[in-house]
Amino acid sequence: MEGTSAAEGGRLGDDLSFLIARANALSISAANAVLKPLDLNVRSYALLALVAGEDPAPTQREIAAFLRLDPSQVVGLVDALEGRGLIERLPDPRDRRARTVTATAAGRTLAGEARAAALEAERTLHPTLTPSERETLIALLRRVAFAD
Amino acid sequence: MEGTSAAEGGRLGDDLSFLIARANALSISAANAVLKPLDLNVRSYALLALVAGEDPAPTQREIAAFLRLDPSQVVGLVDALEGRGLIERLPDPRDRRARTVTATAAGRTLAGEARAAALEAERTLHPTLTPSERETLIALLRRVAFAD
Repeated sequence: MEGTSAAEGGRLGDDLSFLIARANALSISAANAVLKPLDLNVRSYALLALVAGEDPAPTQREIAAFLRLDPSQVVGLVDALEGRGLIERLPDPRDRRARTVTATAAGRTLAGEARAAALEAERTLHPTLTPSERETLIALLRRVAFAD
Repeated sequence: MEGTSAAEGGRLGDDLSFLIARANALSISAANAVLKPLDLNVRSYALLALVAGEDPAPTQREIAAFLRLDPSQVVGLVDALEGRGLIERLPDPRDRRARTVTATAAGRTLAGEARAAALEAERTLHPTLTPSERETLIALLRRVAFAD
């Protein structure tokens, strides 16, 4: 069964949820390997990339919803990245009780390096997809990932 | 940022690995909710569905590779499902030192019920995908999930 074709996984090879789970496991392994030299992993990278790209800066609650993490996990990630000077918490101009998270200049630089590394790792995941097939896959997956 | 469109997640919304991770988180939540009444979760279901569909019966090592789990996780899952009479370990006719895992009649019945529930949950994940879009997504994802 090793080196198996998808058809051999019983009917699991036709199961969208199973294929998403297996693709995700492979994707996490590949990404963590290239992010490790930057002292990041898929979670801290996703948070850093998100806040580096967001304007206005999101709150921790918004980050948790977007990344599908528990708020407590987000607090831990934010603490760690803030301790490294990569992000900072600022008062939310929209809500005095809330704090937003924004990337520092160092954080934006690291996010850019990490993004390049992650995209390179991603390419190794699907060596046979053409650019147009990749675009189709992204467009369809986006409708699953953001169905609500 | 909540109720956001994908375009709003900075450039993360164009990142295939991020979309796979977010789709997977949504898929796991939806599947676990419908599997819970059957006393299964996505991992125990995947294992049960796999061994119910495989002929010849896979070894624990093959199951671990296919499901991208640690062998120790597979042992725990196999122990639990075997304790419920849903699967059994049998000597491997191909290798006297190895044991294969096969579903019992009760296990195959439960796998069928779980599969129906999981497929129904999956449909709620992507209410707007047409059947042909779903087929395209599965075909492309399969090339990522089984690139090796």
